[in-house]
Amino acid sequence: MARRVPRGQETRARILTTALGLFARRGYGSVSIEEIAHEAGVTKGAVYHWFADKDDIGRELQHDLYERLSLASMHTFVPGDDVVSNITRAFDTYLSLLGDLGEARFFLRDAWVIPALDQAGRHDHEDAVDMVRRVLAAAIDRGELVTLDADALARVLLGVFAEATLHVLRTGHRRAAEDVVRHLLESLRATPARPARAAMRRGAVR
Amino acid sequence: MARRVPRGQETRARILTTALGLFARRGYGSVSIEEIAHEAGVTKGAVYHWFADKDDIGRELQHDLYERLSLASMHTFVPGDDVVSNITRAFDTYLSLLGDLGEARFFLRDAWVIPALDQAGRHDHEDAVDMVRRVLAAAIDRGELVTLDADALARVLLGVFAEATLHVLRTGHRRAAEDVVRHLLESLRATPARPARAAMRRGAVR
Repeated sequence: MARRVPRGQETRARILTTALGLFARRGYGSVSIEEIAHEAGVTKGAVYHWFADKDDIGRELQHDLYERLSLASMHTFVPGDDVVSNITRAFDTYLSLLGDLGEARFFLRDAWVIPALDQAGRHDHEDAVDMVRRVLAAAIDRGELVTLDADALARVLLGVFAEATLHVLRTGHRRAAEDVVRHLLESLRATPARPARAAMRRGAVR
Repeated sequence: MARRVPRGQETRARILTTALGLFARRGYGSVSIEEIAHEAGVTKGAVYHWFADKDDIGRELQHDLYERLSLASMHTFVPGDDVVSNITRAFDTYLSLLGDLGEARFFLRDAWVIPALDQAGRHDHEDAVDMVRRVLAAAIDRGELVTLDADALARVLLGVFAEATLHVLRTGHRRAAEDVVRHLLESLRATPARPARAAMRRGAVR
């Protein structure tokens, strides 16, 4: 029977896991390729066989974390449920996963301020903007959300999520940032919490 | 009568203005100190007398633009007016000034993705967070805004403003981003637009 993971891929995965641990514990800037190789128990040559340089490792780790987080968040979308509940749940899932990442989350926080990684992260960001814009545009068309420009709203909301996430990573507490995000998301509903009764009442008074 | 601006300061100002024009027209990365000196009609030595390197010029320009924009925005605060109106007006003023900056606004957009400048911009950002947090905390204490953590809210709102500004710079139109910002800010009022009547009505029905 063939090995499910080729030996080379195992080495590559070990280099990535080792690098992530080192980056998270000691900070991206102060870790060298030599240390990664030593800690992973491979030669420097083996590292350079798989990666062009340290930034290449960093970009791979960042993209992998991004994919895991965004895929898991998207999987919480319940078809038929309203968009505000879906987006709120997706963001909650994102924060929970971030918490579960352990030390890796410190690398993610740092990655945003490492130029070489930030640049690569922009492509992921544009993918995220595209996805959120499509979800919002459909909900605005259905009359589920207030009528705002879907592109502007998608970018602003991703700014909200990014700042809220940084607040959670910085303070170590979720509640304050989550409350802000929930409040802003709730404000986007075209109809308030109890739409039918409120509308009737308003009609009756007029 | 003494000259109001010493000759050296005039040279320094001319270098800055020239550099800003070049950065805005051609992009920060492709402009050299030599070109700045040539275009400003001074020697390279004169440029290096005032600035350590190109990033030093960039940081000075960025900080100067930040100060002009934030001071002007703060001056639109009307004491006694509600905080949502004040913040909305401050953001409108910020966008108007950005439009009036002409080509300089392109430098500002680029500066956010130039590592050396972005780093320096973080100090300005923390100042802005401090200011907004204080304004929000006072309004929450007065019962004027919904009860949310002032620190989390300040950071998230600055993320909103930054993304909205980038949207305006990217699309060349203010309306879409402004509508999003206004809507989110309005949602922060502790009492909705016509609080008294709505509350009475609700009370009467129950």
